[in-house]
Amino acid sequence: MFCFPAFTLDIHKSKGIFILSLSLSSSLFSHLQLTQNPQHPTSIMATEPWQDVVSKKQLEVVSMIPDAWRLPESMLKSAQTPGANVLEIPADSGILSAKQLIITESYDATDLLGKIEQKELSAYEVTEAFCKRAALAQQVTYCLTEVFFEKALERAKELDEILLKTGQRVGPLHGLPVSLKECFNVEGVPSSLGFASFIENGPVKTNSAVVEILLKLGAIPYVKTNIPQTMMAAESHNNVFGRTLNPHRTNLTAGGSSGGEGALIAMRGSVLGVGTDIAGSIRIPALCNGTFGFKPSVDRIPYGGQTSSSRGGMLGIKPCAGPLATSVRDLEMFMQAVIQTDPWELDSAVIFSPWRTVAPKKVLRLGLIEEDPHLPLHPPIQRTLTEAVDKLRAAGHEVIPLNLSAIFDACVLGFRMFAMDPAKTAFKHISASGEPVIPALATTALPQDYMPFDYAPLTLEALYDLNEQRTKIKELFRSLFVQEKLDAVISAGYQSTAVPHDTYGMPAYTTIWNVTDYPSCVIPHGKADKKADGSFIRDVNYVPSYAIEGAPCSVQLGGRNMQDEELVQVAKIVSEVIKS
Amino acid sequence: MFCFPAFTLDIHKSKGIFILSLSLSSSLFSHLQLTQNPQHPTSIMATEPWQDVVSKKQLEVVSMIPDAWRLPESMLKSAQTPGANVLEIPADSGILSAKQLIITESYDATDLLGKIEQKELSAYEVTEAFCKRAALAQQVTYCLTEVFFEKALERAKELDEILLKTGQRVGPLHGLPVSLKECFNVEGVPSSLGFASFIENGPVKTNSAVVEILLKLGAIPYVKTNIPQTMMAAESHNNVFGRTLNPHRTNLTAGGSSGGEGALIAMRGSVLGVGTDIAGSIRIPALCNGTFGFKPSVDRIPYGGQTSSSRGGMLGIKPCAGPLATSVRDLEMFMQAVIQTDPWELDSAVIFSPWRTVAPKKVLRLGLIEEDPHLPLHPPIQRTLTEAVDKLRAAGHEVIPLNLSAIFDACVLGFRMFAMDPAKTAFKHISASGEPVIPALATTALPQDYMPFDYAPLTLEALYDLNEQRTKIKELFRSLFVQEKLDAVISAGYQSTAVPHDTYGMPAYTTIWNVTDYPSCVIPHGKADKKADGSFIRDVNYVPSYAIEGAPCSVQLGGRNMQDEELVQVAKIVSEVIKS
Repeated sequence: MFCFPAFTLDIHKSKGIFILSLSLSSSLFSHLQLTQNPQHPTSIMATEPWQDVVSKKQLEVVSMIPDAWRLPESMLKSAQTPGANVLEIPADSGILSAKQLIITESYDATDLLGKIEQKELSAYEVTEAFCKRAALAQQVTYCLTEVFFEKALERAKELDEILLKTGQRVGPLHGLPVSLKECFNVEGVPSSLGFASFIENGPVKTNSAVVEILLKLGAIPYVKTNIPQTMMAAESHNNVFGRTLNPHRTNLTAGGSSGGEGALIAMRGSVLGVGTDIAGSIRIPALCNGTFGFKPSVDRIPYGGQTSSSRGGMLGIKPCAGPLATSVRDLEMFMQAVIQTDPWELDSAVIFSPWRTVAPKKVLRLGLIEEDPHLPLHPPIQRTLTEAVDKLRAAGHEVIPLNLSAIFDACVLGFRMFAMDPAKTAFKHISASGEPVIPALATTALPQDYMPFDYAPLTLEALYDLNEQRTKIKELFRSLFVQEKLDAVISAGYQSTAVPHDTYGMPAYTTIWNVTDYPSCVIPHGKADKKADGSFIRDVNYVPSYAIEGAPCSVQLGGRNMQDEELVQVAKIVSEVIKS
Repeated sequence: MFCFPAFTLDIHKSKGIFILSLSLSSSLFSHLQLTQNPQHPTSIMATEPWQDVVSKKQLEVVSMIPDAWRLPESMLKSAQTPGANVLEIPADSGILSAKQLIITESYDATDLLGKIEQKELSAYEVTEAFCKRAALAQQVTYCLTEVFFEKALERAKELDEILLKTGQRVGPLHGLPVSLKECFNVEGVPSSLGFASFIENGPVKTNSAVVEILLKLGAIPYVKTNIPQTMMAAESHNNVFGRTLNPHRTNLTAGGSSGGEGALIAMRGSVLGVGTDIAGSIRIPALCNGTFGFKPSVDRIPYGGQTSSSRGGMLGIKPCAGPLATSVRDLEMFMQAVIQTDPWELDSAVIFSPWRTVAPKKVLRLGLIEEDPHLPLHPPIQRTLTEAVDKLRAAGHEVIPLNLSAIFDACVLGFRMFAMDPAKTAFKHISASGEPVIPALATTALPQDYMPFDYAPLTLEALYDLNEQRTKIKELFRSLFVQEKLDAVISAGYQSTAVPHDTYGMPAYTTIWNVTDYPSCVIPHGKADKKADGSFIRDVNYVPSYAIEGAPCSVQLGGRNMQDEELVQVAKIVSEVIKS
């Protein structure tokens, strides 16, 4: 509170009705191009019916899959049986060669990188195999949005030539195909986010910061993957790219918002994908599809330069970018490789925090969140979590049950924060074209009592109070970890396995780690099995109702903020112990 | 946006009119004590006139200075001459012994710690010397709020005994008296913040996180220091503890909000103090009083557990805690010592980021902000900055002028954020007792055109937009540092030296480093000198008007976010070069 009379006129003049009048934008930024903060495109008001715009786009997308990679009609038909398991379709299709099946099925990213470096496999043949398999995955799960196979294969060729000529790799991800969630910008590729109103924006002109880094590391982007309309649901469904299906059982959700990644990786159409997470959007697809997923601490992996459906200047809980993969070591490899490029030089939001090498502990001390009584664990989840804990204890690790029952409350707090934008920007992008709201969001657009949105008045006062509540939760978790000397906390990532479409509900077990901003990792562990699960059926209100068979199960770990390195080491140990 | 019908009733019921109805507080926190987040006390409504409450408090404060340490009437009188330089009063008073003068005048904290460790000096005699000198400083500059000499001397005795017995120091700050800004909580000592309405709250029951750490390190808290009413001014003045005067010339401001620290350290009544900074509150007192001051990146030094005048759940730019001292190496020593205690274990807001040892660069590459045309540098500041740059270049370092003229605009943005609380909580603490608003704030409480407060409508919409503007500024600075390969940026910390009371105005040159969240350091450099400054007088509008002689000058450095270690090394080099 300082007075400065000499500037009265100046400031007063420069003041418009609203704060954008501040002369900052013109004076400060004239000489420097700023491309790394998220892009918030304006949706284009419909000049032709949204159905026409979308139809054209869909034809375009379909046409990008070569005829030779199309599944026969009969196979497509059998895949369309409700509840079909489509995981074997690529192998059964005959479209992939024996070698391509081995390339796509037998290795994780670390293996593949080794084989490319050793020239046992070329980047070209690896990329071709994954392009093909991604094309097949798309036909049965609708997991893709944009494909740029030719560009990818061209890059693979160049990388092979460089390695051949120089004997040197371009970087630690030399030759590895990496899939990207739709929201990441790739120069020359559209980022419509599945909004009809964004289609006319056409291809974007710059790369997201993380894409820039992946290219520098030698990776090969080749596809972008499907998301929910607005990205604010656990159901990857929109009017442009359709609905992503769970390859384990197509009547189940593939989760969201990085649901395309989850389905694609489960189909082995990718071994390493980049997603984003603000309430579980990396971990939900991981647990629905049986893959690994890692939500880093916010602002370790650059989030900048994406196309965003949200309002700029986001308040409260921040989203983050992170990997989905088929092994913990690949999650670590991604984190380390990206952070070793000094991403803070490219994106001002990234926290300077060089990747640290930490030794794995011999004996882990894990806190255990058994369940929040609001959200009773379904039998397969309770069984597989119990089994995981038993295995960990048998292996000599300590597991300490925590008396913690407000996971759901913390989630409601998170969702109040997510809904703070009074302009409801994401919904404006829907109405701009007149397209319908997807079922998973339809209910939420209404002022229904049970929705967390609009609970908090959209005022500054409310935001202060939410912020203060959030600080209390952070203090609680700090205090828990310190007092109990925990290396990490183990819990379910969701009360159920993947659920039927449009019924996922509140993702409380994942959101807690966004509210605290602690890193979190999902590790697959077993499958729903009626026989084995039988003894875990309790007289409680399972939500959504329990009726799943054969779907993947998993456990979730949460570690301390900015100690992603430590959590990765814990995850390696846990993954090894529970897979046995 | 997830629906969860099963909880309809439950959530609906738990919803009150306002968000505090969320069941978090009761259910989540029942079993754990949470003390480290800032304390937001309620001001107590007046039951007796504020003047009476304040008078009692003032008598109490005065009575805590031993009679033997009181200045003679004649000396007090001469100190009260308007514009007097009172720096020599402690030496002239005869109250300090020759040894006490040497202890308080000849060493920095690092020296003193070495001498205590080597048993050349005892913690007791060091503490006694500084208690005495602080008491003298108080009598001529009103720099203190609370004194707890006895407690400090008792602790010093204990520390001496431990060292004697065990041969081991309690910690790296063993035996060092450390002064604390009023807002830090010390168990058993009041934290009234100079609000009449806080006086009745009495002594606090817990230590701030940083106080807890200082105790663990072996430091000896002995005084708390004066601040502005509401802490939102560069004038340390309130109705309880009065107005802190600048010891170089008492008609000048000592700055704020850590103004008591600045004056106390200039008087050598302390060699190491802890302040806080959201717009320059560490660096302004440093530059006004000719001391060193370091504003770390936010959340490296724990800020938790203070008494706060602001609303809880603060949005936008965050304040931080950091040191004022008499040398750069002491700033480094403080940062390193505190961070090496793993402060993230004590305060959930602290970012896990272990202190790194970085090698000093041989040749620095510094950006130079010559000035923002809105805020022309006064002749002594322009001269001493120019001289500093000349010395740096002569020593072989590179200094690159930056084309950057929106320092003032960025400051206005910052001040819009600071004023976001619709409840104006800090002002409520004033009105609760009926005490008057201090002159430095009086103008700001009115809706005057030239004040940055209330420019932005106090809405969520405005906050989103301010946040987005802030991101652009961060991107600009990242981009500048990266493109120009800068180690740091050098500039003035303010356009003038310390100014007459209540005229400081907008602290734009300091606030830019809060808006960017870059660490920043103030290094003393010369003094205003009419003769030397003459050739720097330009035909520009100096604000406030230029008429200062003999006041300290300084330069300011800004470094990259979370690279406090690197900035400290740069500051060491710059400090060495420019002092020659």
